[in-house]
Formats: sequence, structure tokens, C-alpha cells
Amino acid sequence: MKWKRSERLVDMTRHLLEYPRELIPLTFFSERYKAAKSSISEDLTIVKETFEEKGTGKLVTVSGAAGGVKFIPKVGSADVQEVISLLMEELGHSDRLLPGGYLFMTDLLGNPRLMDRVGKVFASAFAETEIDVIMTVATKGIPIAHSIARHLNVPVVIVRRDSKVTEGPTVSINYVSGSTRRIQTMVLSKRSMRSGQKVLITDDFMKAGGTMVGMKNLLEEFGCKLAGIAVLVEAEHLEDVLVDDYLSLVKLRAVNEKDRTIVLDEGNYFAEGGN
Amino acid sequence: MKWKRSERLVDMTRHLLEYPRELIPLTFFSERYKAAKSSISEDLTIVKETFEEKGTGKLVTVSGAAGGVKFIPKVGSADVQEVISLLMEELGHSDRLLPGGYLFMTDLLGNPRLMDRVGKVFASAFAETEIDVIMTVATKGIPIAHSIARHLNVPVVIVRRDSKVTEGPTVSINYVSGSTRRIQTMVLSKRSMRSGQKVLITDDFMKAGGTMVGMKNLLEEFGCKLAGIAVLVEAEHLEDVLVDDYLSLVKLRAVNEKDRTIVLDEGNYFAEGGN
Repeated sequence: MKWKRSERLVDMTRHLLEYPRELIPLTFFSERYKAAKSSISEDLTIVKETFEEKGTGKLVTVSGAAGGVKFIPKVGSADVQEVISLLMEELGHSDRLLPGGYLFMTDLLGNPRLMDRVGKVFASAFAETEIDVIMTVATKGIPIAHSIARHLNVPVVIVRRDSKVTEGPTVSINYVSGSTRRIQTMVLSKRSMRSGQKVLITDDFMKAGGTMVGMKNLLEEFGCKLAGIAVLVEAEHLEDVLVDDYLSLVKLRAVNEKDRTIVLDEGNYFAEGGN
Repeated sequence: MKWKRSERLVDMTRHLLEYPRELIPLTFFSERYKAAKSSISEDLTIVKETFEEKGTGKLVTVSGAAGGVKFIPKVGSADVQEVISLLMEELGHSDRLLPGGYLFMTDLLGNPRLMDRVGKVFASAFAETEIDVIMTVATKGIPIAHSIARHLNVPVVIVRRDSKVTEGPTVSINYVSGSTRRIQTMVLSKRSMRSGQKVLITDDFMKAGGTMVGMKNLLEEFGCKLAGIAVLVEAEHLEDVLVDDYLSLVKLRAVNEKDRTIVLDEGNYFAEGGN
């Protein structure tokens, strides 16, 4: 059955969105739709222009025999700003305040639509960076890690606090927690990563950055390289943060448990050239 | 700026895929594209036919003043079969065998594309079931839970083994692990669910079903109702499984640690009317 252009556009859009950062040969589309490559090229031009105009992402064309087309998720600054504002509004509610000055964020991390947007925002910032793996530590960073990973089309590895039989042989390290100065352990399955891979670290919250340093040390044990750090919320910290380059969406400036006030600011996403 | 039909189709497809199970008023599209509602209706017919023909999902039209259109993700049987076969092929490799007859699955759970497909398969099975929340237990079920949740457009709640300050006040229960008969604890943030909500439970692996019973008891503590159980891999178990209705994609029949063989079968997805 021959497809009409309108049907091709719908199915092509669906396919490109479902397979981000994957090189799709033009022959795949021309065989699927029983259409000439010239028609497919015209279709792709329409998709490309619409995607770029509406801030969905870029379509990159690779020419030559091994060529094809690749969808790179990219959000516009206005969309990033909207996600940041939404997070700040949500996080500013005084009923989020927990003993010790922590913020309740579990509901936000359990919102798949919000996590999808956060993931796309970070994937967008790292669109031009070589990344092979996303790393996070259990439990709260996992939704963010998976969302970034889906938009970047790379696997997720999850660092744990304790070793489990289902992980197989593991590599473990000790590190000093930045704020409490306690010695803690991190464990990662040996099969998780290969030497030479480039790793993006992510987590939901960062204060002194001790957990980040732990993950950095752990990936070095695997012979891997740090490609970047993405944090949903960073908290004001008196001393220097233990890691240099990171992107954050929101900064928690201060909490007052007595007055039950929360002071939030934008993170460094735009300042650090995230978009 | 007025949009051409071809551009509307691309952007409309993107929007519908990004907002599954959300009622989108026709006015949203007619304002966005500066087009008459009659044109939008024609566009939607094209999207609907293409989605239904290619197994992307259904477009449900709700008429009347509060009406609009809703995209319901649905996969065809052939796609489900493909996901099951892929899982069986991957899980059958003898190097996945761990001491105690466990299977290494961490890499599969860390593959966002595979998890997305698994999530869509389960979302498809529960497309006609009322579901308000997806529940799982940390850590390995989280990617599956989030993927199902994204396709069903509902939040995820994560049960933990231990209470953490960042969860706020919690409800905890004790339960008996099905296979080891040990008493274990489960903890869930009090803010996670409201009385009367319908909950889909999911996990990566189920043997006797003790963890599932634990989660079932926990949701009853919240005055919630069990809406279904979705399991990636169930393992053969001599006695009756402790839960009645569940869907599984793969069944682990037997492992032989000496010969290093793994015997797998299809789960009960099709038998239980998952599609």
C-alpha cells in the first residue's frame, strides 16, 4: 500500500520522536512508505522546519552511503524558563519544608510529565557533548537519569549504597559526605561501564557536592571520564562546592524553619551556557 | 502566521504523543494553528487513521462543549510479541546467571528505549482500567514504573525499605518475604497517595509474590484499591503465587547453575488478555 504524504508526515514524526539521536537511513523511510527518496527528502524538510520553528529539536542530515537523518531533542530558552519557573513555584510552598531544612520533592520526582521535561532540558544542554552513559545514585535521581537518557539515547547506571546479589560482582568505594563529613560507601556493578566511556552524572539535590565527588571517583575506578553534571536543585552552601562544572535548574538560597519560608532562585543553567 | 496542513500534522502528532491520555480541546489546536475547527477535525482524522493503522494508539474524540481529543497509547500484538521475544533472547544468555539462581537484568532495566517499550506494552494492557497511581518498590522497578506512568499520564510512588528524612512522615508495614520467609519492612511517604485512589503495582521480578503482597497491604493502609499488577519477569515457583491477578512478560522456568542453562518461557500477558 502506498502512503499519502499526510500519513507519512504523521508516522515519520512519531518515528523520529521515538528514536532520538539514532541515525535513520532514508531507505528505511522509503521502504516503509513505498515512496521515492526524493519524496522522503521533501517530507523531512517539512518535519525539520516544523521541529525547529516550534522548539521540538533539530533534524540533522548525514549525507553519503551511510547517511540518513537524526533527530536531536532541543528545547528553546522559553521552554527552559517555563520548566524552571514551574519548579520554583512548586518548590516554594511552605508545606514542603521538612525538619533539618530539607524540602519534600518526592511528588515532583514522581511526576512523569515533569521529569520528561526536565530530562529534555538537560539533554538539550548536553546535545553537543559526547556522552555514553548517565550515572546516578539510588533512589531519587533515577527518574531524572532515565529521562535524560531517553532523550540522549544512552543507558543509565545506578550506583547503590549497598551491594545486592542481583548486581553481580561490584566495585565499591568510600567517600566523605560533603555536609555531614561521614564516611559512606558506593557500589556499582562491574558490568555497568567499560573503560573510556564518557559519563554524565545526575542527581535531584546537591549541597556540598560530596555525593558527586563519590560518583566521580567511582567512574574513575572504571577508567571512565566525567562528561558533565546535571542537578535539579542545588542548595546554598557556605564553603565552595566540591565539584566545578555542573548545571542546576533551581538554587535553594535559604530556608527558615521558624517562619516556614523558602527562598529560591534560578539555578546556573543559563549562566553556564546550558542553552 | 498561518500554518500549512503539513506543518500542523507534524506538530499535532508531536503534541498528542507528548500528552498521552490528556483531553485536548479542539480550540487549543485551532488557536495554536490559527485554523478553523473544521480543518483541525480533518487533520485529526488523518492522525487517527495513521496512528490506528500503524499500532501507535487510539485517538478518542469527546464531543460537546467540554470535548476534545485524547491520545491513548496502544501497541499491537505483533509489537508486544517483539518486546517479549527481545527480552527472552536477552535474558537467555548464560552469562546472566548469578549465584543463587538469580539473573543479571540491570543492563536491561538501564536501557531507556527498552523500558519505554515495556512501559507502553503494560500501559496498553491497562488502557481501559481506571488507574490513578503506579506503585513500585525501590530500586529496580523504578524505570518500569516511570515508563508505564508516562504512557498512562499518572504519578509514580516509590516504596522504600527504610525511612528517609526527605520523605516526610511515612506509613510503614511489615510483611513476610515469600521465598525467604523473612520479616521485612516497607515504608511509604504519607503524602504519596489519597484514600480511594486506584493503584497499579509493578516490579521487575516476582517469585512467590511476597513483595507484591507487601505493597498490596501498604496501599490498603492508605485506603487505596489495587487496580492491577505488572511484572517484567516472573519465576517458576513450587507453591501458589501469593497474588492472583498479574500480568508478566517473561517466565523464568528453570536455571541450572552447574550446566549454566536458563529456561525461559513467555509470561501470561497474552493468556491473561493483556492485548
